[in-house]
Amino acid sequence: MLVVMQEGATVAQTEAVIERLVEMGFTVHRSTGVRHTVLGGVGPLDDFDPAELEVLAGVKECHRIVSPYKLASRSFKPAGTIVKIGKVEIGGAKVVAMAGPCSIETEEQIETSAAIVARAGAQVIRGGAFKPRSSPYSFQGLGEAGLKLIRAAADRHGLAVVSEVMDAVQIPLLVEYSDILQVGARNMQNFNLLRELGKVRKPVLVKRGIAATLEELLLSAEYVMSGGNYEVILCERGIRTFETSTRNTMDISAIPVLKRLTHLPVVADPSHGTGKRDYVLPMAYAAVAAGADGLLVEVHPDPDHAVSDGAQTLRPEQFSEMMRQTQAIAAAIGRAA
Amino acid sequence: MLVVMQEGATVAQTEAVIERLVEMGFTVHRSTGVRHTVLGGVGPLDDFDPAELEVLAGVKECHRIVSPYKLASRSFKPAGTIVKIGKVEIGGAKVVAMAGPCSIETEEQIETSAAIVARAGAQVIRGGAFKPRSSPYSFQGLGEAGLKLIRAAADRHGLAVVSEVMDAVQIPLLVEYSDILQVGARNMQNFNLLRELGKVRKPVLVKRGIAATLEELLLSAEYVMSGGNYEVILCERGIRTFETSTRNTMDISAIPVLKRLTHLPVVADPSHGTGKRDYVLPMAYAAVAAGADGLLVEVHPDPDHAVSDGAQTLRPEQFSEMMRQTQAIAAAIGRAA
Amino acid sequence: MLVVMQEGATVAQTEAVIERLVEMGFTVHRSTGVRHTVLGGVGPLDDFDPAELEVLAGVKECHRIVSPYKLASRSFKPAGTIVKIGKVEIGGAKVVAMAGPCSIETEEQIETSAAIVARAGAQVIRGGAFKPRSSPYSFQGLGEAGLKLIRAAADRHGLAVVSEVMDAVQIPLLVEYSDILQVGARNMQNFNLLRELGKVRKPVLVKRGIAATLEELLLSAEYVMSGGNYEVILCERGIRTFETSTRNTMDISAIPVLKRLTHLPVVADPSHGTGKRDYVLPMAYAAVAAGADGLLVEVHPDPDHAVSDGAQTLRPEQFSEMMRQTQAIAAAIGRAA
Amino acid sequence: MLVVMQEGATVAQTEAVIERLVEMGFTVHRSTGVRHTVLGGVGPLDDFDPAELEVLAGVKECHRIVSPYKLASRSFKPAGTIVKIGKVEIGGAKVVAMAGPCSIETEEQIETSAAIVARAGAQVIRGGAFKPRSSPYSFQGLGEAGLKLIRAAADRHGLAVVSEVMDAVQIPLLVEYSDILQVGARNMQNFNLLRELGKVRKPVLVKRGIAATLEELLLSAEYVMSGGNYEVILCERGIRTFETSTRNTMDISAIPVLKRLTHLPVVADPSHGTGKRDYVLPMAYAAVAAGADGLLVEVHPDPDHAVSDGAQTLRPEQFSEMMRQTQAIAAAIGRAA
Repeated sequence: MLVVMQEGATVAQTEAVIERLVEMGFTVHRSTGVRHTVLGGVGPLDDFDPAELEVLAGVKECHRIVSPYKLASRSFKPAGTIVKIGKVEIGGAKVVAMAGPCSIETEEQIETSAAIVARAGAQVIRGGAFKPRSSPYSFQGLGEAGLKLIRAAADRHGLAVVSEVMDAVQIPLLVEYSDILQVGARNMQNFNLLRELGKVRKPVLVKRGIAATLEELLLSAEYVMSGGNYEVILCERGIRTFETSTRNTMDISAIPVLKRLTHLPVVADPSHGTGKRDYVLPMAYAAVAAGADGLLVEVHPDPDHAVSDGAQTLRPEQFSEMMRQTQAIAAAIGRAA
Repeated sequence: MLVVMQEGATVAQTEAVIERLVEMGFTVHRSTGVRHTVLGGVGPLDDFDPAELEVLAGVKECHRIVSPYKLASRSFKPAGTIVKIGKVEIGGAKVVAMAGPCSIETEEQIETSAAIVARAGAQVIRGGAFKPRSSPYSFQGLGEAGLKLIRAAADRHGLAVVSEVMDAVQIPLLVEYSDILQVGARNMQNFNLLRELGKVRKPVLVKRGIAATLEELLLSAEYVMSGGNYEVILCERGIRTFETSTRNTMDISAIPVLKRLTHLPVVADPSHGTGKRDYVLPMAYAAVAAGADGLLVEVHPDPDHAVSDGAQTLRPEQFSEMMRQTQAIAAAIGRAA
Repeated sequence: MLVVMQEGATVAQTEAVIERLVEMGFTVHRSTGVRHTVLGGVGPLDDFDPAELEVLAGVKECHRIVSPYKLASRSFKPAGTIVKIGKVEIGGAKVVAMAGPCSIETEEQIETSAAIVARAGAQVIRGGAFKPRSSPYSFQGLGEAGLKLIRAAADRHGLAVVSEVMDAVQIPLLVEYSDILQVGARNMQNFNLLRELGKVRKPVLVKRGIAATLEELLLSAEYVMSGGNYEVILCERGIRTFETSTRNTMDISAIPVLKRLTHLPVVADPSHGTGKRDYVLPMAYAAVAAGADGLLVEVHPDPDHAVSDGAQTLRPEQFSEMMRQTQAIAAAIGRAA
Repeated sequence: MLVVMQEGATVAQTEAVIERLVEMGFTVHRSTGVRHTVLGGVGPLDDFDPAELEVLAGVKECHRIVSPYKLASRSFKPAGTIVKIGKVEIGGAKVVAMAGPCSIETEEQIETSAAIVARAGAQVIRGGAFKPRSSPYSFQGLGEAGLKLIRAAADRHGLAVVSEVMDAVQIPLLVEYSDILQVGARNMQNFNLLRELGKVRKPVLVKRGIAATLEELLLSAEYVMSGGNYEVILCERGIRTFETSTRNTMDISAIPVLKRLTHLPVVADPSHGTGKRDYVLPMAYAAVAAGADGLLVEVHPDPDHAVSDGAQTLRPEQFSEMMRQTQAIAAAIGRAA
């Protein structure tokens, strides 16, 4: 904790701030400069809003110097985490593709999807069973019946399963049928859900919220890890900006930044990141070139008739092309594919 | 639904789009212009992503011309909605102040807060019983015990109560102890929670998410209303932008825009909107001047020792000043106060 | 300058950073904490990018603790600056209205505008003579002929003139005909123009760029002031965000934040801030309530036939209403109007 | 032009809008739907603000259906433009690297830079002679002397030159010494400068402003092209968002979107896009993988002592690595390198 006093701060103001810091449990070192007095506080607090001190009289600014996350930081495990699901390793040399439809619709649809996914060389199938939608008048997902269908199709094709958990009450179902539990962008700061996922012993994939900073994403991972579940995968899927030619603006630089800040695997979702099928391939290539450990993409046997997210869903032949090209790019930057 | 074909679109492309529209249930009118063919579709669909058509070959752009919300639109009730809780009317001539601490901490703290709030002329007390925090290591709220404390304090001082519901399972508790159920910014698109609140017969105050457009906020209101609960209050509380001198950027223009688009009452929260105590008063004045029907602000007997949000919480004397000034401004623009 | 070393930084890394700081002219104080070493640097540098140090090995983060602006800071002149043009005082007790058409079009148009502006009680007329437009195919302004027209009309009605300077070569013309030289949002960081305006001895009104932070706006003011021209007025006119219901998002909180950081007068432009006529009045009220020293608004005898910006231009009767209401609000918050 | 009337719009309102459209030069077709009347206007206007109609009584919304740019649109030249400077082809099969220091500092510095750039396989050297800085107290560039130095160094090493023009008065100098005239992000909407560059017969590289949409970038290109200069190169270099771990957020998706909308070459600047040296390489790879026709990067013999932008400037060995890797990625996606 560094507190910088204003140029004209009085002795009384400085002492009041010191008193406050001591009261909060900090040991304080004072450093008097030519223009500014700086107070260094060493203390026990993990969660602290610097604004609490910045509103005190005479304070210019306050900087937290200890990261608010620990378990998720790169220094906690410099070699990097590899999340393993059977033979699948996320965070290792190989770039892992996770693909499938937005929603699980029918047995035939998910079976065909699994075949497409497996044939093209992907290792994980995705598909949602719970689909609360932005309109109250839409398809809401098949629930447990859908999870059974995706599990069976995955098993037939030797795939692992990733599926979204929307609420803590759904955790037991997801643990039963899915290999990776996905937390959607809108739930990234659903702290109750994150806490419950900390008690689970299956990998959790956390998607970045559309208005979340990378520090906030890492704090969400910390939430899960602080419960004892260290198998967390982070996913960039686009942030909201002023640009409207894509649904969101995919922040590709999040990938190298996260790889530096944390030991956790980082994957990218170019389907939600762009919202339009034609941009999914180039953005998948960009993500792999920038160092992503995996991709999460939507593919459907017949995207024009998908019940949800059709516009951003790849056709089977596009997906095959994506798999070929990402393998070539992965090889070019020295990764397996 | 208006679909504009590209300048060089072929007849076959145009016919494929028409076919697709018909298949989706639209009746289609074609209008051939000098440069562009425009297809007008009249149909049954309430929830439709224009991107679904924009990815078809030959399509330039697609515009939804029917608003995705109906019950929340101004035209549904041009005179405007007044939400009544006993003698309190939100959306009427009077600007209603809702104030209190971020968290319910102790019996003494909430009793003192209620006295401060009532004495200054506010009609509603706020206070949170469930406080999932951005760090896993913090105070998480008193739960039902807290709700009992705020209810008792409110009753002693003749105040109504607004408190946040974080999860559908908490609804019965909130219905029992609170007069208005608040949906926080992070839950604005928690569609499961919204749907359950549609079954409740108590007013719901929905806060705008930090990355939510006004259309999305109205769609969240529609979610609640489509369940039969028409008593919805909207709250502007700041959006995330590149500016960092305030925690969020309070979008004051949201107030007149919402007043035009919807019949629902609109209130503003300058505490969360700015994140710093010193800016709460001017932003409260701005909100009232721009037409807000009410204010939601944080005040605490001793903000320096509040367990949460202290930096943005008013001291009692600041709150009294705010109440005096907002009454003068309300009178200046022809409202009661 | 505060440099926080990473938790595992080596002695050699820390010494390399110290060496670098010394080489840059800083005197360095080292403070070794439990987890982090912090280096405090006192030095001569006014303009320094903290990223220069953050890329060094072992460095966690770097904070500049001296503000990059001095002349513009509140502490330079705590009582506040009042910019005087004849009897007009901007930054004093009275809220000053500056109004007029976007472009100077004809003698009759500007004469009628001046009459409308003066009759409603405004003290300054605005109007552009140089209008480089976002399309290469549009009206580009009357140039000097237009400046002569606005000067004459202003003199007939006892008004001061504010008009935009687009390029350093236009400065002599503007100095001859205008009382305040306006720098548009797109030129806020045109440092060549700002430097030349520092040599002028007439007030300069600097508009905030649509992607500019308040610190950047203050640095632009500093640029002008460092040339010896201390009469600078700052103007909030909306920033670009994800919200599209208004053309820009007017950052009303910029007003109290700037009033705290700087002694310079702060005005607001709700016409550009919203882009739509119907929202100009409520946003003008909000700006005055939040503490703005003045308003800059577009009004035209016949907005439907204005050559530019018609959609955001007030009709004469709306302008009169705005003047009456802002006076009432100014009075309510204890200002003259 | 499509004008959608509100659900309850009166006949008189609709007729007033039609009258207004006719007055503006549009031929109007009316289409009466179940809920909405839609007016289609065919007209001569290239530059039109839809808000002008949206403020009319009874209007719900207005859509411009003809793109505001023509010469820059893909349909104007479907095969794509290749900008040629001697043997260098930008927009062809080969990904072109343009590299060099931020500022031209000394003869030795620019000579060493040219050697580094040429040896690694780049074809164009960059370097700024005019450096107006965000602080009034900094190095401002060598001017013409600098341009002479970079021209001579480029000629010795067989490189083309790209350098920034800050003001129309500098155009003759840049035309004399540089092969490509760069327009900086802050000047992207300096319409006077763009118009003058339309008269030049040398390629112009236009950088996207930090708050500019892709449509606005294309309109800036149109400005140059409408003057007769068709050799325009577009450059993505990061936009301003809420994320602060990088200086800007590089919008990699701009690359495929622009390649679809326009025939002009698209390059990327990962140095300004990230602001930090360590992220330049992964973002360069991402840009090439996403389809960029070239890269613009900063490299310096000794970045720690560069007079400007040192933190984002590559060391020589990093640059060589970048060149090797981008060639491998280009090959992987089927391009020459």
